[in-house]
Parts: sequence; structure tokens; C-alpha cells
Amino acid sequence: MTAHSPTSLSRTETLSLLSLTFACVVILTNTFQGDGEPLIASLALSGLAFAATFAMIRWLGPTFMKAGLKGVDMSKHHRKEIPECMGAICAVVYLLVVIIFVPFPFYKDIVAATSGGGNRDVVLHVEHVQQGRFLHRFPHSKLASYLSAIISLQSIAILGIGDDLFDIRWRHKFFIPAFASIPLLVVYFVDFGVTSIVIPIPLQPYLGELFNLGPLYYVYMAGVAIFSPNSINILAGINGIEVTQSIVIAMLLAINDALYLITPPYPHPATDSHLFSLYFLLPFLGVSFALLWYNRYPARVFVGDTYCYFAGMVFVVVSILGHFSKTLILLLIPQIFNFVYSVPQLFGLVPCPRHRLPRFNARTGLLEPSITPWTVDRQPKPPIAWGLKMLHNLRLLRVTLDGQGRFVETTNFTLINLWLVWRGPLREDKLALELTAMQTVLGLFGLFVRHGLARVVFKEDNWGITGRW
Amino acid sequence: MTAHSPTSLSRTETLSLLSLTFACVVILTNTFQGDGEPLIASLALSGLAFAATFAMIRWLGPTFMKAGLKGVDMSKHHRKEIPECMGAICAVVYLLVVIIFVPFPFYKDIVAATSGGGNRDVVLHVEHVQQGRFLHRFPHSKLASYLSAIISLQSIAILGIGDDLFDIRWRHKFFIPAFASIPLLVVYFVDFGVTSIVIPIPLQPYLGELFNLGPLYYVYMAGVAIFSPNSINILAGINGIEVTQSIVIAMLLAINDALYLITPPYPHPATDSHLFSLYFLLPFLGVSFALLWYNRYPARVFVGDTYCYFAGMVFVVVSILGHFSKTLILLLIPQIFNFVYSVPQLFGLVPCPRHRLPRFNARTGLLEPSITPWTVDRQPKPPIAWGLKMLHNLRLLRVTLDGQGRFVETTNFTLINLWLVWRGPLREDKLALELTAMQTVLGLFGLFVRHGLARVVFKEDNWGITGRW
Repeated sequence: MTAHSPTSLSRTETLSLLSLTFACVVILTNTFQGDGEPLIASLALSGLAFAATFAMIRWLGPTFMKAGLKGVDMSKHHRKEIPECMGAICAVVYLLVVIIFVPFPFYKDIVAATSGGGNRDVVLHVEHVQQGRFLHRFPHSKLASYLSAIISLQSIAILGIGDDLFDIRWRHKFFIPAFASIPLLVVYFVDFGVTSIVIPIPLQPYLGELFNLGPLYYVYMAGVAIFSPNSINILAGINGIEVTQSIVIAMLLAINDALYLITPPYPHPATDSHLFSLYFLLPFLGVSFALLWYNRYPARVFVGDTYCYFAGMVFVVVSILGHFSKTLILLLIPQIFNFVYSVPQLFGLVPCPRHRLPRFNARTGLLEPSITPWTVDRQPKPPIAWGLKMLHNLRLLRVTLDGQGRFVETTNFTLINLWLVWRGPLREDKLALELTAMQTVLGLFGLFVRHGLARVVFKEDNWGITGRW
Repeated sequence: MTAHSPTSLSRTETLSLLSLTFACVVILTNTFQGDGEPLIASLALSGLAFAATFAMIRWLGPTFMKAGLKGVDMSKHHRKEIPECMGAICAVVYLLVVIIFVPFPFYKDIVAATSGGGNRDVVLHVEHVQQGRFLHRFPHSKLASYLSAIISLQSIAILGIGDDLFDIRWRHKFFIPAFASIPLLVVYFVDFGVTSIVIPIPLQPYLGELFNLGPLYYVYMAGVAIFSPNSINILAGINGIEVTQSIVIAMLLAINDALYLITPPYPHPATDSHLFSLYFLLPFLGVSFALLWYNRYPARVFVGDTYCYFAGMVFVVVSILGHFSKTLILLLIPQIFNFVYSVPQLFGLVPCPRHRLPRFNARTGLLEPSITPWTVDRQPKPPIAWGLKMLHNLRLLRVTLDGQGRFVETTNFTLINLWLVWRGPLREDKLALELTAMQTVLGLFGLFVRHGLARVVFKEDNWGITGRW
């Protein structure tokens, strides 16, 4: 740390942030010259979101600590208290930015309608019909879904802050994202109601081209909404990992969106839904990079549950309203593995300690897998014992037995601990970097498979209902 | 207090709440038999909101206190700590209820559209055009304004909770409602854009029938949005007063809405906007009555800034989107008086202590006006001194002078203190009751003037743009 006060920005930082802010404001103003290019405006607003988050995390750290929002980093030599729940700042800045952004995708429509005069509603609807389904901008009628996305994100922010404040019990907080997804589902019901999925070609002779899931589609959406935020929340425990995994997923989704936007020679039917997705992902990347600056090793702030829930919900919102929730699932493979792998402890088959983060070895300064100890009195039941040894043989767990073949300890069931079992003790930053790299490679491979194989399995390179968006 | 644990409901309470819940669920289910009567559904959901808020305030009190959200009631003999910021529970329950309510106003449209099959959008728009402006239900195109209202209310909830947590400075928090009104203004801009006001008949020869305020209309709306929540927040300091004043305003607005809904023989052009208003006011009354139960004298919980901001924003949302913001101003007369009266202290002309709530006289158990002391060294400047004496002569302040005509003390500039100057020392509950009664009488008189005189001053009994909402 430099000599300046920990709550004020250094001169370099101030100058950099001011330059960025100035550049973004100029770009934003320029978008009004043309058609109000919403994608450029979104980029500029994301830059502003980065600058605002960066400054506010610095300024508000002590305020958060004074309000009791603080924590101790257990994987460091010097266990000092640092601000907790900084994801709340990201959420508030993000929400403000996406709210301010609302008029931009509609700018062209507003201009057209205003010059038309008279009854605006009718003018817009006729215009919508005339331009057909291949609009490069948001159609005016999609305002409602944009707003419902904001409502879901605000709901998760409120519930996440509540969780950070009151430390809600695990079995209750699991359903927090379900509550937050209600606005999404309700507006989906009112405004779209599309509950059909496209059937892969090999199955079409049996099931038809479209299969209507009916009410089950809402259960499916609620399931995705519950899983995504929770899965990010449980792949946690080392500096920066919550933010880097969210950034990787957001960037992979953005790449996926970009693939749809650059398909010559004609605009892809799903262009609108992928523009929509970018409008929500770019500001998220803005606030996340600012948070990462402080949360990377050695962490100067913690992100809190708010950030994890919020990140997961951003992905849910863009993928459900953009009709590419299956692509999201493909990009959540490390999180899905971590969840499935955690099941024995989450459901109590194996004792689960309060914290499962890796153990900090103060002598070496490296992280080692944390363990669940087994006493002579409390040994696993035979089927569990068999399973644990099996996992050990598959190199999916490290089991330590004593001379009599009794269980002494087993490593905790998290992907982070498993990685340490595979790679041996690592320094915290190297561990986070390797996990992030692994996730990036897996995600890129997933996108390759999705776009390479989709053409074979489906008629078109798009799993959603073409043109609905 | 009875013998049961303070965080659990008594058997009578449990039975009453369960009966209410059961009745409301039955009513709610029945609305699906007919046209999904949204007003009945809203009433039933408001009953559920009451039950949920009532139970949750009881259950979560200790959790709030553990998280540091607690305060001391300074106007009691026994100054024990009680939970603070319980308005946050009201806000969360309210938001959940209005989100769940979203499909109800559109139920008829959904049924019509679903049976129509094919491209739902087109079906709905045509239907909308055919039914014209006299729809008794929400037109589908109004979904966006409903959602923007929810976004504004969620924003104020987040900012209010932030204020309760971090004790934001007065000059900063003054603008919190402005931030929260951004979604409202943005969606207003995208979706309506009506910035004209109807000119009173006597002025029409000079200004025309409609006068376009243009961008100033947004400044006006932001002004109302800033004023309403803040004015409720500063008329505070005795048990129950924040909640009772909000309930009175909400009920008067609901009466005003009812007057539009019962105008035979044909539906009033503004029917939709007043139904919209009721959909937001009824659940607000539900959560507020539950809060009042705990906050009335002697208070067992405090409401927090969250409640005041939230209440003020509910009124802003319904009156701006319903185009009757001038009626709201009419109902805020006690708050406006309190604000104007507070100006000398808010702007530092007279010293302003941290708290201006009435002084509790422990001997009598009554409240007396709190005072600002003047020392011999620090006397008011001549013009201020003249003004203070003038106010004293007008019975709008109590000034105490010493033998040499020097200022010893002046009562603080709040409506509550002024009421005590007029009425003499009062017990806290009597003071709250009298202020509430005064506000009710003033409000009813305001409504009478508005509906009686409006017919003379305007062509129609409606200040908004007829039919737009």
C-alpha cells in the first residue's frame, strides 16, 4: 500500500478514473448523434460503472466496517478485518446503470414515434409490424422484459443484502433466488408465455418439431434461477474466486452473443436477444473488474453473498429472457461439478464443517486441502466407507486411514480442495489462477461444442424459438 | 406483554392470522373463476400482506437487533432497546405481493390472447384498439408502467436500507428519492412522454387548453419524488406518527380513487389510472396496519427511514403514473407546512440540534416542546430575533426571554412541537392521535375542495390528460 489514506484514491488512480469517465461521457454523448447506437452506449456506461464502483468501494469500505459488515481473512499470516459485502456496491451501481440505459435501445423508436405525432401507441405498433422480426434494436414491446430483468436483479440484491446482514440459515437461503426469479417468471407468463422447446432432429419423428413443456417450463426456469446463483455462492473461499468465475462466465456469454451478432450476410433471427444479453453483461463486467481489483489476492475487501447471488442472477436473466438457458448450463460445468461433488456433505452423508475453505499452512504460506476428521468412535457407515475409498481410488478424494484401516480424515468435498489434492499445496493466488484457467478452457470448449455440434443436432444454430426475440 | 416468548405469536394471534390467510387464499382462488377480478385479488393479497408482515415483524425482531439494527425510545421511563428499521420487512413483503399481483390485471387479456392463438402480440394490440380507451382492466401496454413503479419502489427500498445501515448524512440522503425516481422518469419518457398539463378555464384564453411543460415536466416529477418521501421522513419522532400519517394519506388517495370508480352511468376516462393506484395502495395499507400494531404507543419496534421513504415513494408512483400528482400535493399539506416551518432550522438560520423530537418530562410522563437554548454569548442576529418574536406573537413559536429581553430558548421548528405549544403537554399517544385527526380532517377537506371546485375551474372533474391514464 502507498502512503495515501486507505479510503482516498491516489493521484494516479484519480487521474485514470477521471480520464475513463471523461472518455465514456464523450462516447455516450456521441451516440445521440446517430441512431443512439445502444451497444456503444452500453460499453460507455460499463466504463462509467467500473469507475464508479472502483471509487465507491474505496470510499465506503470504512462505512461498511462501522456498520458491522466486516470479516477476517483466515488464509493469511496477519488476520486483519476487512470490509465485507462489497458486492452490494456493485449491485447498486449496476442497477443504476442499467436503469439509466433503458431509453437507449428505444432511442430510434422514440424519435420515430415523436416525429409521427398523434397517438404514439398506434404508430409504434404499426411500425413494429412493418419492420418485422429482424429489428437490430429492441422492439418497443420488449420494454417489459427489460424491466422485469431489472426487477429480478433488484430483488436478488435486496435478498442478498438481507442474507449478508442477518446470516440466513443455509436451508432457507437456498430458496432466495427462487423468490427473486418470481418477477421474471410472472412477466414471462404475462408477456411471452412461450413454453415450447425445440426438439433435436434425431428425436423429431417421435416428439415433433416443438415440444410444449407447459407449466413444467416455469419449474425448469425456477430451477435454473435457483441453481445458478447458489452454485456460484458455493464455489468460494479463496480470494478472488467468486469474481473471476463470474467474469469468465460473463465473458463466455458475451462471446456467445458476439457470435450471433457477426453472422453475415443477414442478421440472425436471435440478434435481439443477444443484444439484450450484452446490454446486461457489459455493465456487469464493468462493476466486476472493479471489485476484482480489491478482492484479488491479497484481498482488501470481501464480496459477500450479495455479489454471488447477483452474478448468478445476471446470467439467469440474460439466458432465460434470451432463450439460451441451455448454453448457460454448458458454461456452468465447473459449478455443476462442484455442486454434485458437494452433495455428500450438503446432504449430511459425510459430516460438513461450518467452513470448508482450504487450510492455510502458516509455515509454508501455502493452501492445503481442508479435511473432515473421523474419530475412532465416529466412523463412516459401511456403504459410505466403501464410497469414500472408491473416490480415493478414482483420485476424486484423499482418504487417510490409520494402521487398522480406520478413517482418520477425508478431504472436504469441494472442487477447490480437490484441485489441491491433485496439484499439491499451492499459494492462494496461484490456486485461483489455475481454477480460473481451467474454467476458461472448459467454457471455450463448451462453446465450440455448442456451435459446432448444434448445426448437426438442430436444423439451425440456435436452440431458442427463432424470432420470438 | 403476555407470558409467551416475545418472538412467537400467541395462540389467538396465530389463529386470527391463519383465518385471515385462509379467507384471503379462498378469495384469491375464486377470482380465477370469473374475469380474475383484479381489485378483489388485490384486496385478498393485501390481507395476506398484513398477515405476513405481522408475523415476520414478531419473528425477525431479535435478528434485526443482533445485526445492530436497534434503537432506544427516548420518550419513555424505561429506555430499553427495541428493533429498528422494521419498515424493511414491510417493503420486502409489499414488493413480493405487488410482483405476484402482476398477472391479475392482465388475466382477461391473457385468456383472450391464449384462446386466440398465433401471434399473441398482434392479437392483443388489435383487441386494445377495438376496446378503445374505456377498458376496466389494465391495457396490456400498461405493463411497462406497472413494472417501472415496482422498480422505483425497489430502488427506494435498497437506498432506504442503505440509509438505515450507514446513517447517510442529511444533505446526501435528501437526494436518495431522486435516484429512486429515475426508473419512473425513464420509463415515463420511453412509454408515455406526455408533458402537457391542462390549463384552468379562466387562463385558457391566454395559454391555450393544454400547456406543454416539456423537460420541465420531468423536473417537476423529480421534485415531487424528492419531496414526498422526505416530507414524511421529517414529520417523525413520536411513536406511530410515521405510520399513521402514511395510512391517512393512502386512505385519502384510495377514497379519491373510489370516487372515480363509482361515477355512473359510464366509466370515467381515468378509471384505469385509479385502479392502478388502488392496486398499489391496498397492499401498502396491509403492511402499514401490521407495522402500526407494533409501532403504536408504546412502540415495540421502530420503522426506520426505509418505511418513510418507501411510503412517500408509493404515493409518488401512483400519483405520477396516475396523473394526479396535484391531488397528492393537496393531501400532503401538513407535511408541506412542517417542511416550510422547518426551513429556518434546516437551512441553519436557527441552530438545529441533532434531534428535534419533543422532550419527555419524566415527572409528568407527558411530552413538552423541545427547545433550542440561546446563551448570553450566542444571541440571534437582529433580523432573526425580530422574526422569532413575530412568530411568537402569531402563536407559531414559543420564545422565552430573560429580564433583559435576551433570548433564553425557542421551541424547535417542527409541527409536532408547535402542536404542543398550542395544546400544552400531552401524552405521546394522545399527541399522535390528535395530529392524525387533524391530518384526516384537512385531507378530507382537501378532497372536497378538489372535487367540488374542480368542476368550476376545469371543464372536467379531472386534472390529468383524460384517457391517457
